[in-house]
Amino acid sequence: MKERAILLDMLVDRVRSLLSEERYEEAAMLLEGLHPADVAEIFEELDEDEQTLLLQHMDPGVSADVLEELHEEEAAELAEELPDDMLTAIVDEMEPDEAADLLREMPEERRQRILAELEDPDEVRPLLRHPDESAGGLMTTEFLALRRRMTVADALEAVRQLAPSADPDNIFYIYVVDQYGRLVGVVSLYDLIRAEPYELIGDVMDRDVISVRSDVDREEAAAVFAHYDLLSLPVVDEDGRLVGIITSDDILDVLEEEATEDIQRLGGSEPLDKPYLDTSPFEVMRKRVGWLLLLFVTASLTGTVMKLFQGDLSRHIELTYFIPLLIGTGGNAGSQTTATIIRALAIGEVDLRDALSVLWHEMRVGLLLGLVMALVGVLRALTWGTPFPVAEAVATALILLILWATSVGAVMPLIMSRLGIDPAVVSGPFMSTLVDATGLFIYLQTARLILG
Amino acid sequence: MKERAILLDMLVDRVRSLLSEERYEEAAMLLEGLHPADVAEIFEELDEDEQTLLLQHMDPGVSADVLEELHEEEAAELAEELPDDMLTAIVDEMEPDEAADLLREMPEERRQRILAELEDPDEVRPLLRHPDESAGGLMTTEFLALRRRMTVADALEAVRQLAPSADPDNIFYIYVVDQYGRLVGVVSLYDLIRAEPYELIGDVMDRDVISVRSDVDREEAAAVFAHYDLLSLPVVDEDGRLVGIITSDDILDVLEEEATEDIQRLGGSEPLDKPYLDTSPFEVMRKRVGWLLLLFVTASLTGTVMKLFQGDLSRHIELTYFIPLLIGTGGNAGSQTTATIIRALAIGEVDLRDALSVLWHEMRVGLLLGLVMALVGVLRALTWGTPFPVAEAVATALILLILWATSVGAVMPLIMSRLGIDPAVVSGPFMSTLVDATGLFIYLQTARLILG
Repeated sequence: MKERAILLDMLVDRVRSLLSEERYEEAAMLLEGLHPADVAEIFEELDEDEQTLLLQHMDPGVSADVLEELHEEEAAELAEELPDDMLTAIVDEMEPDEAADLLREMPEERRQRILAELEDPDEVRPLLRHPDESAGGLMTTEFLALRRRMTVADALEAVRQLAPSADPDNIFYIYVVDQYGRLVGVVSLYDLIRAEPYELIGDVMDRDVISVRSDVDREEAAAVFAHYDLLSLPVVDEDGRLVGIITSDDILDVLEEEATEDIQRLGGSEPLDKPYLDTSPFEVMRKRVGWLLLLFVTASLTGTVMKLFQGDLSRHIELTYFIPLLIGTGGNAGSQTTATIIRALAIGEVDLRDALSVLWHEMRVGLLLGLVMALVGVLRALTWGTPFPVAEAVATALILLILWATSVGAVMPLIMSRLGIDPAVVSGPFMSTLVDATGLFIYLQTARLILG
Repeated sequence: MKERAILLDMLVDRVRSLLSEERYEEAAMLLEGLHPADVAEIFEELDEDEQTLLLQHMDPGVSADVLEELHEEEAAELAEELPDDMLTAIVDEMEPDEAADLLREMPEERRQRILAELEDPDEVRPLLRHPDESAGGLMTTEFLALRRRMTVADALEAVRQLAPSADPDNIFYIYVVDQYGRLVGVVSLYDLIRAEPYELIGDVMDRDVISVRSDVDREEAAAVFAHYDLLSLPVVDEDGRLVGIITSDDILDVLEEEATEDIQRLGGSEPLDKPYLDTSPFEVMRKRVGWLLLLFVTASLTGTVMKLFQGDLSRHIELTYFIPLLIGTGGNAGSQTTATIIRALAIGEVDLRDALSVLWHEMRVGLLLGLVMALVGVLRALTWGTPFPVAEAVATALILLILWATSVGAVMPLIMSRLGIDPAVVSGPFMSTLVDATGLFIYLQTARLILG
């Protein structure tokens, strides 16, 4: 991909210099021959003034493609800079679901102005009723639905009659509805080509059509899509009427965004709303400061625990040497567990019904890890010249502590999931914070019991 | 999805009891009507003996579908339990790329035996030459390729002549090759239906066909697929000859697996090779113990740093109270940064060319976080009754430490990426380990300078 990166850089420079020389048409023309995904990538390297200039000079169809590829928030910021008539021309060329996403980000007044001017506002308007996070917010109204009584020849003719602007990737499957508009089957273009022209759609269609309700969470829609290896997923309303379809590009975006959110949460940050480099340092700070502040609470709890065992610590000063090691081990063992469990929950490898199996699994893992670490800990302590009873206390504490950390790490994400909270909030920093003081308590209590 | 989970549970129980009563045919029949993805899900709840019994009694076509849906390692373990003739019948029904994945996991001798018995070994054999992690290892040989000189009518006839066993989802696009087999264009079924029967494929095809070389990493193939919103991606050899296609279900699997690996690495564990609950506790322990052991090294480094500043610590005993807080803050700030940067690298939001922007971004974030934490730290220290110069040292150290942690957190994944190592190895535990001793040094050195 190296050659590609160099090429993109050159194109960015060329567009920049054309724009600075006010040769706007040439800059726009340079981009219009490329794939929209590549134009969007070049776009992201430009600053907002340059982007606005280009959008004003490119063909509305190309501008529409580019806005579709950009992150929603970025597209909305650019849209703000465009006059109404230009924006309307672009939105007219966008796919209905992408147009709805963009309109959702606008102030109410402007949204209504643009909607009133659109060529076909009825394609977009119903989509605006669905929340962004639902299957309805993900679907497009651009699909083909036929009736059972039609023949294969009629169906092929219907495909031929579609407007040239229709996106072929949305028409690989044709959905079949009854007289009330309820989804009753699906037939692929492949099936149509292979069927005899006089056959009825009702006879060649597949009745086992998988669909989701428009009000399910978009994450659930993505899970269904991936589970059944679909290429498009029909969306129905509460009465089973077909209202839209979700296409695979939207699913890829959802899966990518959800994994990004989980990873950012696991790292101890609230998910960012925009791509990283487009998020201001102040905004990034705001997303991260929460977990860092929480540490102040733990730090005082740790202090409280240490005060509780002041006597033991001053009698066996060697115990203190192992505090950072013990605390660190607990936090790390906990983070390892939560990362694994959170991901297993996200991809459906485990669910709440597996809670006991997961706990039992992690307890065995914790015991094994504890035994290995205890062995290494004893060797370490003895080579440091630590008295044997202290080494014994450290080893026992390591086993108990790791067992505790893996168990808490297994249970916390499951509890969050049960409460309907994203399990990924049980981040690494959360676990360190949780295990620090409790782990210290386990360590010192063990030491007190062993050292008497 | 709750009703669905209950339903699946009931089916699992029913299959179990039928199997225990040796009513194998009925158990197999119960499953044969379901979607393969659901059969696979039920399968995963059964133990290995039950799974083997079912595979022996189900229709080979259904067994093939189920093995395709299972994780490769699980499918291979089940295949071990089946006699050669039964396994051959199942592999015959599998898609070529899935068959190759399964054969790759077998011992050489058995692989050759099965290959020799297959109905169409030439569909599978070329796929075995490609490593599992490459685009070639992901592709299937089941695709339709036509010549430019053919008419649209010929092309439609070719679609009609395909074996009924062909997977329609692989045939939405038809690829066009020249006399040397080199990929020169693509045409969709949609285009074929809309074109006139006498038109030439060379005239209706799209010449801008995006492809990847068979030897690129499968992660790169997935990135191209997602970048261009494709539904299938043709794979070519070093001479540009079409050798296979990658379908979207494989891409979804790759993206899911790669995100899972990244998340497990970020949590401080080596990626697991199998689904979590199917990985033995011993294996899970082995994947995690590395980072935990590394802490022993840091712990001694931390001890060394503390010895270095023994004098200062005994003169200003209040300094010690803040050690856990300072170390924890550094580790957490570092993990927050690496999680964000690693993900941004993985989804292409940033690349090596952005190294300086990323560093500059994180330094500003670090400064802001440092200022907030310093303010809170000073307030905290003063309410604890800490002497003002110590509070000043803590505040200054917090700023420097967080700045250090975010900078290191930004740079480390970029360095790994530059060295061709997966940036996700810069996990939370790695960062804590790295920042612990250095952070302590920064803190105590700052204190020494301020307190004199």
